Amino acid sequence: MPYKILKQAHKKLLEKKKTVAVAESCSGGLLSYLLTDIPGSSRYFLLGVVAYSNNSKEKILNIPAKTIARYTAVSGRVAALMAENVRKKAKSDFGLSITGIAGPAGATANKPVGTVFICLSDKNKTNCRKFSFRGNRRQIRKRSAEEALRLLCARLSP
Amino acid sequence: MPYKILKQAHKKLLEKKKTVAVAESCSGGLLSYLLTDIPGSSRYFLLGVVAYSNNSKEKILNIPAKTIARYTAVSGRVAALMAENVRKKAKSDFGLSITGIAGPAGATANKPVGTVFICLSDKNKTNCRKFSFRGNRRQIRKRSAEEALRLLCARLSP
Repeated sequence: MPYKILKQAHKKLLEKKKTVAVAESCSGGLLSYLLTDIPGSSRYFLLGVVAYSNNSKEKILNIPAKTIARYTAVSGRVAALMAENVRKKAKSDFGLSITGIAGPAGATANKPVGTVFICLSDKNKTNCRKFSFRGNRRQIRKRSAEEALRLLCARLSP
Repeated sequence: MPYKILKQAHKKLLEKKKTVAVAESCSGGLLSYLLTDIPGSSRYFLLGVVAYSNNSKEKILNIPAKTIARYTAVSGRVAALMAENVRKKAKSDFGLSITGIAGPAGATANKPVGTVFICLSDKNKTNCRKFSFRGNRRQIRKRSAEEALRLLCARLSP
């Protein structure tokens, strides 16, 4: 597990007194689990949503069904809305989202297994990155959470 | 990680075509992470909510602030509402909840570290159990997720 980058995120969030909320799909709760690993994490971690079904994405994260239908659940557009909306729901400083294809099933012609979109939102902007991870399901999920933590740390750096 | 009981849950959920949603506090997403570990889990896992802050418990899981104030967030009453409400939100067959004190801080006079409430809700009933786990933070979180899976498997047995 990516504990080194997690410790950095922990330290920076406490130093800067910032809070975070998380919306996950393919990583299935791993990012939330990591962000609550270190004692004292309740000072910055407010909410995690594992929106696995499309219905959950609609009902809990207010992603319009037509947006999912148009862009698919694994898209930058949906990832951006996940990050923005979980931040607003939780009233946190940051919203982090992960949606992708951890496999072994679920690949499409232009989205192979390992395609993952990760977004970071604050009140000023939402940045998204698309990744193409290699490895098995567990490795892809782990790498997704790790990269999300990296994005957060980068934003928190001076 | 409790993969043996997880495999049982996976098999039973598929066999009986049942769906599940999860509301977690102290376990921080571990139960969701486990329930999405095995390929094909999207056929039964619909939603996970890691309601770490009281505001998240109120806003996402509709737990009244006065209920939290009266019973505290680590109580059978709040755990029951978490299980019931996440089930209703997700429209799943089962709702599973975990709330407790993983430590090292957070203990009170009558609720030492390791006190964990786990509830399982379906449309007919909600059952809750109180546990007193030993060990460190990581061990308590792991045991909590494991016992939640045990409760689910027991309910799914013929």
